Amino acid sequence: MPDIAYLNGSFMPIDQATVSINDRGFVFADGIYEVIVAYAGHPFRLTQHLRRLERSAAEIRLAIPKSTKQMEELIQAGIKRAGFDDTMIYLQVTRGAAPRQHAFPENVQPTFVATFREKPIIPADKRRSGVNLITIEDRRWGNCFVKSIALLPNTLAYQQAREAGAYEAILHSAAGIVHECSASNVFFVKEGRVITPAKTNKNLHGITRQVVLDFAEDLDIETVEATVSLDSLLEADEVFLSGTTMEVLGVIRIDDHTIGDGKVGPITERLFQHLSEVTQSSSA
Amino acid sequence: MPDIAYLNGSFMPIDQATVSINDRGFVFADGIYEVIVAYAGHPFRLTQHLRRLERSAAEIRLAIPKSTKQMEELIQAGIKRAGFDDTMIYLQVTRGAAPRQHAFPENVQPTFVATFREKPIIPADKRRSGVNLITIEDRRWGNCFVKSIALLPNTLAYQQAREAGAYEAILHSAAGIVHECSASNVFFVKEGRVITPAKTNKNLHGITRQVVLDFAEDLDIETVEATVSLDSLLEADEVFLSGTTMEVLGVIRIDDHTIGDGKVGPITERLFQHLSEVTQSSSA
Repeated sequence: MPDIAYLNGSFMPIDQATVSINDRGFVFADGIYEVIVAYAGHPFRLTQHLRRLERSAAEIRLAIPKSTKQMEELIQAGIKRAGFDDTMIYLQVTRGAAPRQHAFPENVQPTFVATFREKPIIPADKRRSGVNLITIEDRRWGNCFVKSIALLPNTLAYQQAREAGAYEAILHSAAGIVHECSASNVFFVKEGRVITPAKTNKNLHGITRQVVLDFAEDLDIETVEATVSLDSLLEADEVFLSGTTMEVLGVIRIDDHTIGDGKVGPITERLFQHLSEVTQSSSA
Repeated sequence: MPDIAYLNGSFMPIDQATVSINDRGFVFADGIYEVIVAYAGHPFRLTQHLRRLERSAAEIRLAIPKSTKQMEELIQAGIKRAGFDDTMIYLQVTRGAAPRQHAFPENVQPTFVATFREKPIIPADKRRSGVNLITIEDRRWGNCFVKSIALLPNTLAYQQAREAGAYEAILHSAAGIVHECSASNVFFVKEGRVITPAKTNKNLHGITRQVVLDFAEDLDIETVEATVSLDSLLEADEVFLSGTTMEVLGVIRIDDHTIGDGKVGPITERLFQHLSEVTQSSSA
């Protein structure tokens, strides 16, 4: 089945969807985005994703040219049209096309793009064996809680991880405080507690991060949001990542350090299973 | 005369130039750019601009799909075709279009865009009276010497300045160290010396910044590249900005502080005149 796009009021094959070279998303990274997964046609945590999109837009003073209800409707229409079992929905809003000039343009319609692709699947053996991370000093801007498309530093960190044979990169301050990964949040487990960096300006306040915290409480696992040092990750019993498409993914190594006994840990496993059950059930 | 674009080997009216919504410039700000001015058909400091484009590309590990000579030729062709007296040339290179995935795509052709527009003119009365600046804490990423298109924080700072009735925003560290402005470099004059922030990772190593330093030496004015505090700007005899299209522009106020006697200063004026003479002469 083809990947499809929604742009300027119409659905079309993704390869036919184009924007002006004057679009401020293309020349200034002047836009925001969301990634949502629909399991068997049901977008998971849709309300939260759309609320965050609206919050990101407000942070950069961008008016989304659709109401929440209109976005919900076009997402449902796109899922149906694409016809995948599980769909990865990508939404992007930019300040629109105008002759390149730093100041906001006047009387310009923002660009609203949505794409519908098959949800990528992490191979089962990778989920079982867990993944490696590298650590990189965070060089990103000061407002990483805004889900902006100014992702160049994220892509550079991600690529660096992949070339080092790792799955992701932990971004940390010069002082060794952990912010998040380049495209996911990070957690660790110590003495039965699930711990993750508190929400700051230097990390994305992940929807799946919150799902993990909520599900841990459902499972009677204590959770902590705190300042997290790299050292505490290295000494953890378990480490795992969270993200909309990766869900919950165990980490067995950070740089040259083996985490715990080098296997995906039991709490990581329970949280992943619980998330899978919820997303596979009709109550999702 | 129409603004024109060069894209994928052809010239076209700028409004017809489009890129895929999968272009990594649009979804990841994964690209770099340059702005060059041609005076009466002669691109000023073209070699330096193209060298910086190549350096920016190398920093983000992007292969420009054209040689320096090919870029020079297409710039000359575009200037001729556009037919403006003075032309503003914009070059942008991105990592190309590929299904959205943080890691670098394989076997993808980078996108090369050039646009040719009439050079914007700063009104003579604004040049005579000088402009106001505001000060904003710099929230940008750590590698601002790379001329990347991840300019969202720059546009937000610029817009904030314009809404405050100012022309530009000085970006400074939390400790009050001046980096640059959102789209220009900044200088000040104290006791006859021309002083500007030294090149660091937190400012663009401006071509016009270097031109000003060189021209000051031509005029027997001492120059200093140093760590610059906000306070030293406020206590300066003169303050001015430099940039490719703004050239040299006097500053008379920063926030609520009047600079010097509130008029564009004599050294600022001499540097602007010298630059104008050079760009207007055929030797440019």
